[in-house]
Amino acid sequence: MSAQGYALTMQNLKPFIDQARLDLAELVALESVSAQGRMLAETANRVSEMLQAEGFTVQAYLGDVAPILVAEAGEGPRTLLIYNHYDVQPESPIELWDSPPFEATERDGRLYGRGISDDKGEFISRLAAVRALKAQNGGKLPLKVKWLIEGEEEIGSPSLARFVHEHASELQADGCWWEFGSIDPEGRPIIYAGLKGIICLELRAKVSDSDLHSSLGAVVDNPLYKLSRAIASMRDASGKVTIDGFYDDVRAPSEADLEAVRNIPDESAATRQAYGIKGYLGGVSGEAYYRRLIFEPCLNVNGFHGGYGDAGSKTVLPAEGFVKIDFRLVPDQSPERILELLRAHLDGQGLEDIEIIELESHEHPARSDVADPFVQTALQVASEVHGKPAVLQPSSAGSGPMHPFIEAIGLPVIAAGIGNHASRVHAPNENIVIAHFEKGIEFGLRFMERLSKL
Amino acid sequence: MSAQGYALTMQNLKPFIDQARLDLAELVALESVSAQGRMLAETANRVSEMLQAEGFTVQAYLGDVAPILVAEAGEGPRTLLIYNHYDVQPESPIELWDSPPFEATERDGRLYGRGISDDKGEFISRLAAVRALKAQNGGKLPLKVKWLIEGEEEIGSPSLARFVHEHASELQADGCWWEFGSIDPEGRPIIYAGLKGIICLELRAKVSDSDLHSSLGAVVDNPLYKLSRAIASMRDASGKVTIDGFYDDVRAPSEADLEAVRNIPDESAATRQAYGIKGYLGGVSGEAYYRRLIFEPCLNVNGFHGGYGDAGSKTVLPAEGFVKIDFRLVPDQSPERILELLRAHLDGQGLEDIEIIELESHEHPARSDVADPFVQTALQVASEVHGKPAVLQPSSAGSGPMHPFIEAIGLPVIAAGIGNHASRVHAPNENIVIAHFEKGIEFGLRFMERLSKL
Repeated sequence: MSAQGYALTMQNLKPFIDQARLDLAELVALESVSAQGRMLAETANRVSEMLQAEGFTVQAYLGDVAPILVAEAGEGPRTLLIYNHYDVQPESPIELWDSPPFEATERDGRLYGRGISDDKGEFISRLAAVRALKAQNGGKLPLKVKWLIEGEEEIGSPSLARFVHEHASELQADGCWWEFGSIDPEGRPIIYAGLKGIICLELRAKVSDSDLHSSLGAVVDNPLYKLSRAIASMRDASGKVTIDGFYDDVRAPSEADLEAVRNIPDESAATRQAYGIKGYLGGVSGEAYYRRLIFEPCLNVNGFHGGYGDAGSKTVLPAEGFVKIDFRLVPDQSPERILELLRAHLDGQGLEDIEIIELESHEHPARSDVADPFVQTALQVASEVHGKPAVLQPSSAGSGPMHPFIEAIGLPVIAAGIGNHASRVHAPNENIVIAHFEKGIEFGLRFMERLSKL
Repeated sequence: MSAQGYALTMQNLKPFIDQARLDLAELVALESVSAQGRMLAETANRVSEMLQAEGFTVQAYLGDVAPILVAEAGEGPRTLLIYNHYDVQPESPIELWDSPPFEATERDGRLYGRGISDDKGEFISRLAAVRALKAQNGGKLPLKVKWLIEGEEEIGSPSLARFVHEHASELQADGCWWEFGSIDPEGRPIIYAGLKGIICLELRAKVSDSDLHSSLGAVVDNPLYKLSRAIASMRDASGKVTIDGFYDDVRAPSEADLEAVRNIPDESAATRQAYGIKGYLGGVSGEAYYRRLIFEPCLNVNGFHGGYGDAGSKTVLPAEGFVKIDFRLVPDQSPERILELLRAHLDGQGLEDIEIIELESHEHPARSDVADPFVQTALQVASEVHGKPAVLQPSSAGSGPMHPFIEAIGLPVIAAGIGNHASRVHAPNENIVIAHFEKGIEFGLRFMERLSKL
């Protein structure tokens, strides 16, 4: 790791790290569970105070269930927009935690607690980086930092897209630093430059008002058959979606995207082993595996339920059933268009009576230009801080509300952060590796300093 | 209703009816739940005593979980084999009963109790008919009556087929009177001359050892999609089964079968309304409806379960799932052959890894020659007793262990009895209409008398 040219080394970062650990413990203690509306205003207020203490001006806006904070500080030719969230997932099942979820607890080089990774550890490490950068710079931030912090991310960010569209001009910047990122088991930082879109749907079929004896199956259609036929008609055995027009708007990867994918270390075998996965579609690995994960949309069946499910048999013809599915979308697919295509597809299959229910607000896909200097700067700084070449994924396989930042404000976005492959985000014993938290502060410091000089 | 030529009229049947009501109450009080192994030996003993009291010699054989009784009485050129069972379904959910399930209780012209229709009321009405026939005949039965009564019918008759095959010669007769039958809402007796076969299966698919995040759906197959594809590949939208060879052994209905079906009063609209059925496959009604129900095999999906099933969405790729299905078979399809065809079909679809589990012993289909004098006699007597033309269904749409009686012993079989369309068999408040019970005794008396003179 090279520290040349930086006034602060890891050693003299120590006071900032110590302060950040205290701040993080304080924030984890606030039970800001958005799904249950717990302590959202209190947490927003505390976050606001922390930002104000570093010289930020903070404006609070009303979201659907929690305040949206927009903070601003610093001056310089460059502007960085940071996106984080202060809400967390519910802590249940509480009995599976080895320490109280709302007490930041150190064990074996890690810190445990709800939200310690997602997203309070990310926020606090960046706040500590701002503090260190100011200290190094005579109390001034050498770039403008705009900070958008919401409290509804864990319930699907219902207010965010509208907010970003309405405030696009105030949020203008040179790039956006996304709320997460991770370090792989080999200690390599992974940086994402996009997120897939998602639509979550329920399909429902009903053939009668009450369950029937299955002997009537000779004359009465079966709702579980109808749903099976719907699902089977929507993709093929190779995983390709067979809805007419589904791929029309898929953006081809750029040469830089493909180059990035060629450089991703192949974790497919390790993932396969970790989860006991019997095999990958098409037997892919390496480059082909990541091309599918990053550039290909897909259809998942999340759940299928109807009729008898206990031991043995029951000769019932169920009245109804439902399937829950998600589509993962890639640029430039549009959720609205895919919904229209799906309805037309089912109608074309003679399945007009299958009801489509939207389960939550969908996310548009978004992918930055990986050749953008903002993306390349993040990659270079991360490689220097971690002493290993950073891995650039043009998009995560997951989804999130990144689209308005890229499309409405027009920003390049990078996701770089302090998560690890065993962070247990959304699960009991959520954790971060303390060394990653410290590296995260160092990355933030150097990334902002480098950006200020771009 | 014509009573000419019969020594006993409904009026002087009264003492036999009174005795039968007492016998039935006594038998209902015995909690012979085969699924739970309750009171099976006690009930078998009491049934045996009742038969012996009417002059039957009774042999008891060991079934898998309950004794099989074979009784014999009477002399004459004709022999009737009667099949009944003394076991009942569990009484749960107990809270939905309006009177104690094991106390025969009269309300509004009906008798309520577990097994009062299925099958204790059937057995007792026939025993009362034997008593009346003997009384009319100077204490002698003018035909030989063989009575096979098992205690495992409600758990799929696991011992019966083997027993009938092994005892085929002792069970020889001119025809077999099956354990059930019913009276329709218009008061017309319905007589069945066959039963469909059945195979109950579970299909299982598994893609990994633990659930995955659904973003991996781009590279990992989905067990619920695989099962959907399996189901969708096994039939088409019209209800036709699309497994190669599935229809090869289907026996065409005879001219007499078709004539019988043309005479079935069309209850399809009433059934549709009663259950709120949205429509029938192919829009059938009348003759076409009954041809499908009686002569066509079919595939039913009884249940489909896997993955997330609660409110909202969960972006999970489930590790596994299962589907429960039944095939209803018609003569001369064989369950063993259909199982082979299904395995070959799934393999041919590239679904070799879908596991097929047999859920219980299957039933072979069976259908009698409806032109047989034994069948025609039952039809004629039932029409006389009920004062309305009896309805002949060449087969029930349901299933049961009739096959060895027709195929191994070579008997014509008729199912004629005292059930009604609201008997709530297997459900709380199981009941019979008292007038049907009395008609059942009269039918038995006249049917046996007529058979003795054939």
